[in-house]
Amino acid sequence: MLRAFDVLESAGRIEARPRSGYYVSAHWAQEPAEPRASRPPVSSTRLDVSELVFEVLEAVRDRQVIPLGSAFPDPTLFPLVRLARHLAASARRMSPWDTVQHLPPGSLELRRQISRRYLRHGARVSPEEIIITSGALEALNLSLQVLTRPGDVVVIESPAFYGCLQAIEVRGLRAVEVPTHPQDGVDLPALDRVLRKHPVRACWLMSSFQNPLGSCLSDVARRELVRLLAAHDVPLIDDDVYGDLYFGRKPPATSKSFDKKGLVLHCGSFSKSLAPGYRIGWVAAGRYAQALQRRKMLSTLATSIPVQGGLASYLDDGGYEKVLKGLRRELMARQTAALAALRRHLPAGYAVARPEGGYFLWVQLAGGVDAIELHWRALARGVSIAPGPIFSARRQFRDCVRLNYGHPSPADFNSGIAVLGDLARTLRQ
Amino acid sequence: MLRAFDVLESAGRIEARPRSGYYVSAHWAQEPAEPRASRPPVSSTRLDVSELVFEVLEAVRDRQVIPLGSAFPDPTLFPLVRLARHLAASARRMSPWDTVQHLPPGSLELRRQISRRYLRHGARVSPEEIIITSGALEALNLSLQVLTRPGDVVVIESPAFYGCLQAIEVRGLRAVEVPTHPQDGVDLPALDRVLRKHPVRACWLMSSFQNPLGSCLSDVARRELVRLLAAHDVPLIDDDVYGDLYFGRKPPATSKSFDKKGLVLHCGSFSKSLAPGYRIGWVAAGRYAQALQRRKMLSTLATSIPVQGGLASYLDDGGYEKVLKGLRRELMARQTAALAALRRHLPAGYAVARPEGGYFLWVQLAGGVDAIELHWRALARGVSIAPGPIFSARRQFRDCVRLNYGHPSPADFNSGIAVLGDLARTLRQ
Repeated sequence: MLRAFDVLESAGRIEARPRSGYYVSAHWAQEPAEPRASRPPVSSTRLDVSELVFEVLEAVRDRQVIPLGSAFPDPTLFPLVRLARHLAASARRMSPWDTVQHLPPGSLELRRQISRRYLRHGARVSPEEIIITSGALEALNLSLQVLTRPGDVVVIESPAFYGCLQAIEVRGLRAVEVPTHPQDGVDLPALDRVLRKHPVRACWLMSSFQNPLGSCLSDVARRELVRLLAAHDVPLIDDDVYGDLYFGRKPPATSKSFDKKGLVLHCGSFSKSLAPGYRIGWVAAGRYAQALQRRKMLSTLATSIPVQGGLASYLDDGGYEKVLKGLRRELMARQTAALAALRRHLPAGYAVARPEGGYFLWVQLAGGVDAIELHWRALARGVSIAPGPIFSARRQFRDCVRLNYGHPSPADFNSGIAVLGDLARTLRQ
Repeated sequence: MLRAFDVLESAGRIEARPRSGYYVSAHWAQEPAEPRASRPPVSSTRLDVSELVFEVLEAVRDRQVIPLGSAFPDPTLFPLVRLARHLAASARRMSPWDTVQHLPPGSLELRRQISRRYLRHGARVSPEEIIITSGALEALNLSLQVLTRPGDVVVIESPAFYGCLQAIEVRGLRAVEVPTHPQDGVDLPALDRVLRKHPVRACWLMSSFQNPLGSCLSDVARRELVRLLAAHDVPLIDDDVYGDLYFGRKPPATSKSFDKKGLVLHCGSFSKSLAPGYRIGWVAAGRYAQALQRRKMLSTLATSIPVQGGLASYLDDGGYEKVLKGLRRELMARQTAALAALRRHLPAGYAVARPEGGYFLWVQLAGGVDAIELHWRALARGVSIAPGPIFSARRQFRDCVRLNYGHPSPADFNSGIAVLGDLARTLRQ
């Protein structure tokens, strides 16, 4: 039954693209092709993906495994020693009253620093609407808690970050998936149709370097997204943890720039760009700031005070932009090497987009290779991948994989892909 | 209507105690009296306390206010400088793989240290069943999430920690309150009746130095509690964040010592005893360990890695027992001073128990003083208190207050009580 459904879906996915004007991306219209935009059904679904996700994630922890399936960037790329110094200084300086004063919304100094960073992306965001959280995942969960009740309908991308699918499942929500293009992001006309048809309570997406696709909304599309949602009075949860990892000359705009009604809950983090493992995220919550702050106090009370102080001190001291520049350069170089490794080792006929930021490649394998089976076989040979179905409410994308080129070294990436190419040839139908 | 209910309740509270054998605590049968055990109704309730709690808590943040209403101990009592050193060393040492390897359940080193500490309380708890959390509040929330679905019935104490009431409210659970004695803790025969009558999914209580009462279960009662719940196959969420702050010669036993079926989820924290603001807690989750670990990954992904490492390093280095000894001595001295301040300033006829640990006093004021009104008036004069109704699903305990003698200096505590005494005389009916 599920299998039959998948076959229908696959058939759907090889149809001609309906609105070529929107999807054409001439720059990449060369071999290998980029994967097609998804064609998820327009009904809403209750989810049940957690078990599969956990199985996959737990398999990835082994240090001997080449982590192409990892969600994290290579932590050696970050200024851990300098961060440690600021952390220590902040912990030493902690005043008796900090434990009270840095309760949610959190350290004013850190919120001011984050507010300043929004200016670089062209948005005015007051420290007043920023709430510090224990990583972006808490920010996203709190946003969902503030906006929805169990049974509500939420719009998500297809494919979507598995953490999004799990959060929706845990809260007992119903998801409607919207087609999302590997280069250009969420399909706005399709979103419009969903908003007209369903009683949508929130839209959760990743506007910059989407996980797993790597897609990024253009400034024009981003403005239109915010306008469209505002016209329906639907809040946007924008999971923007990769926005600083752009490869172009200018940062992508932020959805906050176009948010006239305070309907955008913009969730960010330092975990992918500065301080992995520190677990500092935030949400700029617009009109939901007070509700969100209270939810935070009910969830984990406060975010670690010395860590908040340490990051504020680091940012105040300067040097973050330099770190980001180096990081972007490194990731861009690794992407080029990664694409070359795919060309070298994968059986011809695969499709891949070339994201303009982040550290993921979304690859559709040729010949109907089953990504879950590939995952287990690759793991047995010391390579992890993130198989497509963990990014789908209905376990679609069976022939797709997400590959992380930001964690393994380029040499390890190349060896990993050699294994995958070998297995893909065996598994080809 | 609500008022009428309160009057009935008050009437209930001045009845003779039903099982004197259980309640008698001759040691304290002197003036002032200790407050009576509560007599909550035996039906279950949906809660709506958050708004009041937030109003009260937000009023307490002002640094100029004497924090008798605070939930935190005085942070100057803790070894912040030495902790900072370990935090810095741990952050510097962070390996690229720590961000993956210290994902839930969390740092093995820290879990081993916590496991060793259980031995001091007479319990064997394997590191395997311990999950590190972002403070005890997250541990408690995760426990509730793993054990219950919205609409389920949970047993709690009366009065109960307001964070417990809020967690239950947010999850959409129904609470049955069980009478709880200021000295001896939860009324076990009453609990037994509730377990027979209601389809209880979990019991959440504080077995040592309960917040707000300060009550502590004897070893015998604790064993009986665990046995009783196990007989009904009901899991126990034991919020034990004050257990190390005992004034006697021996630590109280832990519910884990008597847990033969893996039904006890024992939640602890370093926030009240070593590292306030660091936000490191844990749960020893028995048979629910795997489910809880997964929930943790869905909630905040991981607990700050350098902070986990810093605490593990501090504990490994030794000295925590010495800190605890000093802390206990200090809190005990402050309690004596606090009780003297009450005698000096409060109108006669008040009732207070003398807890054998922790840093709260639960005071029933004489003459039907309304604690909420007292709270606002005291705040206007620069003193915060925690009024009784925030500890009750039905806003009972209108003439009770929780006073923190562990945060303000003894001199400030005395000044604060002078203000309260003054106001109590005015408000007396």
